Amino acid sequence: MNTIKYPATKEWVKLVQRPIVEQDKLFALVNQIFAEIQKNGNKAVLKYSSFFDKTKTKNIEVDAKQIANSKRNIPKKLQTAIHIAKNNIEVFHATQQEKKQVVETTKGVKCWRENRAIEKVGIYIPGGSAPLFSTVLMLGVPAKLAGCKEIILCTPPAENGSINPAILFTANLVGITKIFVVGGIQAIGAMTFGTETIPRVDKIFGPGNQYVTIAKQVAQNFGVAIDLPAGPSEVLIIADDCAKPKFIAADLLSQAEHGNDSQVILLSNNEAIIEQTMLEINVQIKKLPRENIAEKVLKNSKAILLNSIDECVEFSNSYAPEHLIMAVKNYEKYIDNICNAGSVFLGNYSCESAGDYASGTNHTLPTNGYARNYSGVSLDSFIKKITFQELSKEGIKNIGTAIETMAEAEHLIAHKNAVTIRLNETI
Amino acid sequence: MNTIKYPATKEWVKLVQRPIVEQDKLFALVNQIFAEIQKNGNKAVLKYSSFFDKTKTKNIEVDAKQIANSKRNIPKKLQTAIHIAKNNIEVFHATQQEKKQVVETTKGVKCWRENRAIEKVGIYIPGGSAPLFSTVLMLGVPAKLAGCKEIILCTPPAENGSINPAILFTANLVGITKIFVVGGIQAIGAMTFGTETIPRVDKIFGPGNQYVTIAKQVAQNFGVAIDLPAGPSEVLIIADDCAKPKFIAADLLSQAEHGNDSQVILLSNNEAIIEQTMLEINVQIKKLPRENIAEKVLKNSKAILLNSIDECVEFSNSYAPEHLIMAVKNYEKYIDNICNAGSVFLGNYSCESAGDYASGTNHTLPTNGYARNYSGVSLDSFIKKITFQELSKEGIKNIGTAIETMAEAEHLIAHKNAVTIRLNETI
Repeated sequence: MNTIKYPATKEWVKLVQRPIVEQDKLFALVNQIFAEIQKNGNKAVLKYSSFFDKTKTKNIEVDAKQIANSKRNIPKKLQTAIHIAKNNIEVFHATQQEKKQVVETTKGVKCWRENRAIEKVGIYIPGGSAPLFSTVLMLGVPAKLAGCKEIILCTPPAENGSINPAILFTANLVGITKIFVVGGIQAIGAMTFGTETIPRVDKIFGPGNQYVTIAKQVAQNFGVAIDLPAGPSEVLIIADDCAKPKFIAADLLSQAEHGNDSQVILLSNNEAIIEQTMLEINVQIKKLPRENIAEKVLKNSKAILLNSIDECVEFSNSYAPEHLIMAVKNYEKYIDNICNAGSVFLGNYSCESAGDYASGTNHTLPTNGYARNYSGVSLDSFIKKITFQELSKEGIKNIGTAIETMAEAEHLIAHKNAVTIRLNETI
Repeated sequence: MNTIKYPATKEWVKLVQRPIVEQDKLFALVNQIFAEIQKNGNKAVLKYSSFFDKTKTKNIEVDAKQIANSKRNIPKKLQTAIHIAKNNIEVFHATQQEKKQVVETTKGVKCWRENRAIEKVGIYIPGGSAPLFSTVLMLGVPAKLAGCKEIILCTPPAENGSINPAILFTANLVGITKIFVVGGIQAIGAMTFGTETIPRVDKIFGPGNQYVTIAKQVAQNFGVAIDLPAGPSEVLIIADDCAKPKFIAADLLSQAEHGNDSQVILLSNNEAIIEQTMLEINVQIKKLPRENIAEKVLKNSKAILLNSIDECVEFSNSYAPEHLIMAVKNYEKYIDNICNAGSVFLGNYSCESAGDYASGTNHTLPTNGYARNYSGVSLDSFIKKITFQELSKEGIKNIGTAIETMAEAEHLIAHKNAVTIRLNETI
């Protein structure tokens, strides 16, 4: 990690910048594959599954028996862990349910909102070395709570065509019964247009590599919504002299093992804490199976010494981190000043892993500075809020003249007439 | 309007389709103008203002005096009307404020969300023949309620460089003090990158023509969020024998006067109601200053006779209208079945104009079928919800093993270590 001491505020602009990723070439590829899927359905999906994932299976859909049997391959201890996480995620997301609240804005004019689940949602779970069954919980649990009628899941096959049983087990536990062994651009394309086997969905959720990210971006041009614009994962830790360098080092490393493009930042008002953390990192990193990845990430990462914890919070707001760990004493007094962050971890025992798996909060969060203008995934992400209004005769009498006057001033005479014609009837 | 009687369900797919608009050519233009604004700031903005809006003014920002003076040019009656609308919009959007709710998901694991306003928002108000000061209310009122620190407004100048005083008056009333006389692609570009005069914003709101729509889409590639994907405005009316053809005709016409691409649909289980409405339209349309526009819209519009009001609601859900008017008796019993709509107007006295101006609901709504997967603008649109978690020693002891087990099963050993290292300390 590079240590930077007391940078001037005008230097912050550079320090909070993320590396820029070139993506233009991928758009053409995505558009081509999408066009083929739109035209040829399953045939195109299979073609690209074979090309990208080297799989020869023609059974896109996982059969019910395989899903039910997945339990056998999951150790009891892991089953218990997933149950604990599921419960906490359910409890937290259930608090996000909004009650209907009817308000009479003017006598005779009642307004309210009603929640309706998005009917069809698609969850994408990446394959590869890490089978992200935790993401199945993070997206499946709120989708079920919201009441989505159709929840489908796409995930790429291993080379032998199989899916990690922990993904099947978790999906089954959550109540997702339509699972498709399709990954990458072809999975996003299939959920965007629908094929003979895979249904078209209204909104696509889930992480993925650059191909998936661009495919989700393109899907939006075809009427599909997505959870969040994506970017590499990141953590920012603010530490004072009460922080434990051992813990901080472990947290920085847990972010650093995610991938080569992860972002890791440490802020402190205490130089000794930074130095001790560096030493701890050198000890802990040696024991990691992903040591190489973590080392690369740390090379591009920064430890920044600032004048005070207040200044650290200010810097963090400029950076707008996905994860913010506040390893400082009296962290309560800084909460009100935290305005840009995805999820915040308070105190020495709130490690990022807790939120990644089991505290109950969602781990699908805005990265890449998007914490300035986006929230993470929540129950709201699976819901539309429809506004309702009910005007009585008295209601239209009370606000009718205001509407007529405004409509006329906007030169929208038919808008005015719709009121006038009613006012004439109510006299 | 074309009347279609008892279409088979399989024909619905075609009937609910919107016309497809070709937009590819505009992307290149937007990208070019954006690149120039990013490089040359105000100079590029002025160049395109002069080109598109034929204005020669070099003062992009409206001065405080002009804003304060705008009141003089607004008739008292219009001032009162705007005040009534503002009050109702405030009352309704204030009900959307969410209270903090701390939940202990497991003993020692506290989770909650905190709301933070998006710091910098930009409101775009189109110019042209209709000065949409009502949209200033619909976007400015919730932005202020949310607590956005910087709210700026861009609107194109008339040929003489001026802005409609009703827009200035309303902006001032709401508390927006930074107003820029810039429209179109160059306004969206300026808010995306920032110039010497116009600040960069985190999120852009507001309606506009095709240029503005594409520019907002492109802005998203540069880290800016937008309110909603846009499309032509639309209304769907469900009417039974208790509906008044006069009212329905007026509502259909009020939507039809919006523009050539507006969508207007009438559903009924009663043929006589449809016929009488057609006759009424022929009478009312003659008196409209925008008769030509309305006539064109109606040519592409449909009245559809169905078997029952339940079937009408089902059709409406497939269409997912921006505005849905339920001009039927006992409308309460259909509410639960309405699952895709932007805003719903219940009964004979709830005309769409009421929601457009003054009932209190927001008129920035999902069109073009986006009511399937998007909500309209609300207080939430100006807010991020940050999740917080606070684990005590007891908390990490209680869920630590679950986290370790899951992290290991996902092959994320550093994630596991961050917990192990803490559990070792708490023994």
